[in-house]
Amino acid sequence: MSKNVKMVQSITSRNVDFAQWYTDLCLKAELMDYSEAKGFIIYRPYGYAIWENIQSYLDKKFKETNHQNVYMPLVIPESLFQKEKDHVEGFAPETAIITTTGVEVLSERLIVRPTSETLFCTHFAKIVNSYRDLPKLYNQWCSVVRWEKTTRPFLRGKEFLWQEGHTIHASENEARTEALNMLEIYKTLGEQLLAIPFVTGRKTEKEKFAGALETYTIEALMPDGQALQSGTTHYFGQEFAKAFDIKFQNVDNQSEYVYQTSWGVSTRLIGAVIMVHGDDEGLVLPPYVAPNQVVIIPIQSQNEDVQQATNQIYENLKAQGIRVFIDDSNKSAGWKFSEYEMKGIPVRIEIGPRDLEKGHVTIVTRYNREKSQVNVDEVALKMPDILKDIHENMLKHANDYVSTHTYVAKTYDEFKEYLKQGGYVQMSISGEDAEIQIKQETGATARIVPFDQTLFTNTCPVTGKKATQTVWFARAY
Amino acid sequence: MSKNVKMVQSITSRNVDFAQWYTDLCLKAELMDYSEAKGFIIYRPYGYAIWENIQSYLDKKFKETNHQNVYMPLVIPESLFQKEKDHVEGFAPETAIITTTGVEVLSERLIVRPTSETLFCTHFAKIVNSYRDLPKLYNQWCSVVRWEKTTRPFLRGKEFLWQEGHTIHASENEARTEALNMLEIYKTLGEQLLAIPFVTGRKTEKEKFAGALETYTIEALMPDGQALQSGTTHYFGQEFAKAFDIKFQNVDNQSEYVYQTSWGVSTRLIGAVIMVHGDDEGLVLPPYVAPNQVVIIPIQSQNEDVQQATNQIYENLKAQGIRVFIDDSNKSAGWKFSEYEMKGIPVRIEIGPRDLEKGHVTIVTRYNREKSQVNVDEVALKMPDILKDIHENMLKHANDYVSTHTYVAKTYDEFKEYLKQGGYVQMSISGEDAEIQIKQETGATARIVPFDQTLFTNTCPVTGKKATQTVWFARAY
Repeated sequence: MSKNVKMVQSITSRNVDFAQWYTDLCLKAELMDYSEAKGFIIYRPYGYAIWENIQSYLDKKFKETNHQNVYMPLVIPESLFQKEKDHVEGFAPETAIITTTGVEVLSERLIVRPTSETLFCTHFAKIVNSYRDLPKLYNQWCSVVRWEKTTRPFLRGKEFLWQEGHTIHASENEARTEALNMLEIYKTLGEQLLAIPFVTGRKTEKEKFAGALETYTIEALMPDGQALQSGTTHYFGQEFAKAFDIKFQNVDNQSEYVYQTSWGVSTRLIGAVIMVHGDDEGLVLPPYVAPNQVVIIPIQSQNEDVQQATNQIYENLKAQGIRVFIDDSNKSAGWKFSEYEMKGIPVRIEIGPRDLEKGHVTIVTRYNREKSQVNVDEVALKMPDILKDIHENMLKHANDYVSTHTYVAKTYDEFKEYLKQGGYVQMSISGEDAEIQIKQETGATARIVPFDQTLFTNTCPVTGKKATQTVWFARAY
Repeated sequence: MSKNVKMVQSITSRNVDFAQWYTDLCLKAELMDYSEAKGFIIYRPYGYAIWENIQSYLDKKFKETNHQNVYMPLVIPESLFQKEKDHVEGFAPETAIITTTGVEVLSERLIVRPTSETLFCTHFAKIVNSYRDLPKLYNQWCSVVRWEKTTRPFLRGKEFLWQEGHTIHASENEARTEALNMLEIYKTLGEQLLAIPFVTGRKTEKEKFAGALETYTIEALMPDGQALQSGTTHYFGQEFAKAFDIKFQNVDNQSEYVYQTSWGVSTRLIGAVIMVHGDDEGLVLPPYVAPNQVVIIPIQSQNEDVQQATNQIYENLKAQGIRVFIDDSNKSAGWKFSEYEMKGIPVRIEIGPRDLEKGHVTIVTRYNREKSQVNVDEVALKMPDILKDIHENMLKHANDYVSTHTYVAKTYDEFKEYLKQGGYVQMSISGEDAEIQIKQETGATARIVPFDQTLFTNTCPVTGKKATQTVWFARAY
């Protein structure tokens, strides 16, 4: 198959088969490719560049809030991994294990890190003596391995890229605040970079992280009505500190265990961006996370006026730090339009001689595919506002979708009815008994326990017992 | 042991035991720590920050030269790994192998990547059809695992952080040029960031990378007279392309194999910086790679004039993008001086009331420990030049060391005599027979075959045969 024929028509429509549309898009927009190792994907340049923009945003925020980057080993000796009981139970089945080298069987098996709490804890125990050594606010960028049975690009893989923050504190209050502050940074990432309105809250006992006292989450709603857990922060209390003996002398000179958190987001965020914003023409990237924000396509690129306007606009955009490139290849304009719509580039500028005669160029915004004429001298000047408008409109659109797909159920029948329509269903339930029954009977899981609690009914519609808390349910990835 | 007592005296002197000095320094400057997995180190914040500065410099250079970042899987199926004969022979003994998960034995063993040529090749074969798809200029930042028997912090470990570039081209000339251009970028990294004068050249047949037709190298000379291979670039010709069937239609519509390169530098560079510049007081960091370039120590920090001058200088330095911090903790000035000398911070500014009365502050430059008085209003203004001077003097100092430790031997006795003094010894030899004999008898290895060739003798002093090329020898890490 020649590379010059764009097979736009071969993308499955979202309405026909959402899952297939997603996979088609991941491959055809050249975000990723499958590798020879089953369940492990290749992050191609375009997909990796999205991750780099997410990294750059978060790394800055982490450093502004006094976090420091470190790097822990890829492997965890099996005996170390088994030190915290709940943690190992949660992760052991899905670990990949190194048992041998090219020449000799290892005396102790090494777990490829599925997450690094145990490594951080051992190190913390060595370097902390006094309250003056606290807090330690560490983060690492790396990949982790979890042996998932069914995998989907970016959403669930045997290996994924992420950041994992690990912090220890001298007080419970400070640690709890850290876990909530980092949740807020994740939520802001959604609003400022990804144009995704995350809803936030606590996880139920049943859904929380292995070993955590509290898990907080950001959840995004996909156009198929399913929720996607997009990042979590955990408050561990002193459980790991006790298992790993991380003690410090407090201000009163008493020996005390530290209070701990961890938090992470992963390349799963790329999956969220694809699904929340994409359409049947391909990717639609929010401008601030897009690797390329503007593509300039000269029509009749031999024309001198066109060349001059193209270069001038390019230079002026570049000078403002806007990520822009020119495609003056000899491919057809139609091919280019399709290609860059598939790639989801937020703004396309078409520069043709007829437009130029009237002193303007044509701008097409990807998310709504609207065309407008802009004065050739004003394009660069207006571009920051155009990008801002796109971002705000995309966020608003996504916000509206969440609003119109969030329901309150006062009976179990209502619950089931809303669930069919897709989205979040809020219900006031008795507890884990109701949660388990709902999951078994409807497939929906508890996504969040919202921070602001309102009871909609006095009794639980599922168990008939007293309602104790309101929970947001949804089917989920 | 209290954290407030600085044990500067416990660093071994460089002259007493260079290897022990190095290890002491890595630990006491808090660059790294040992982990529970033997041979795997923890990169602590200060050590990792040095790596981040190297990454930031190189990533910019790579992108300016049109390279794109990608991410390939951590694991390589064993059958794939074995496809290129020379390559697998070079790496197989030192591979770590995943054979099982927490619940089941794998049907095919997975090699944890020691390097990723095989993964890139498989992907290239899938995505390249025509000369229009070339070149592909890819890079990835990741860690790799090699089962080394003896390990030393940063210099040789079972896991290390690196970047690996992998490129394919439509012509031999373009690929060879790429390998040389990337070598030049590495050399420039040394001159501009690390203040290390790398010498460059080809590797001999015996020393080149498993599977490469040519290996080029940057070598640094350590103060103990041993060379450190600090980065390599490789020209592969079409060997991998044939093994992995990476073909393209050339401009004449003929099917042809691509021409390939790879290139990498690693956290070993941190080891080079420590050794080349460090002294008995601790680290000495060149200013452009230093995580903190300036520390301000107010003397009598309760004094209002001191506070005001401290804040003003801090803000003015910060505004220029200089990496600066204030230590106004209640630790003694003496403790602080030792601590930041140990950490190798290039410039210390002491701000005391007596100095201020005379309108100046005291500046101490770490590399030569020289004090000077600078007018309080001029400190910030002069700082960029002060940092530049430090960098240039450190580079010059390192350069002088190489010059005075590079010898020409015209007899084998001279060779052995120079080798004892430490450094590079140039000799014109007959070939691999001489190279092998030299290694067996003296422990010295061929470091580079310089690009500019001058024969110093007509016959090889070792074998008595005709001399064919001049080679730089040294003992090496």
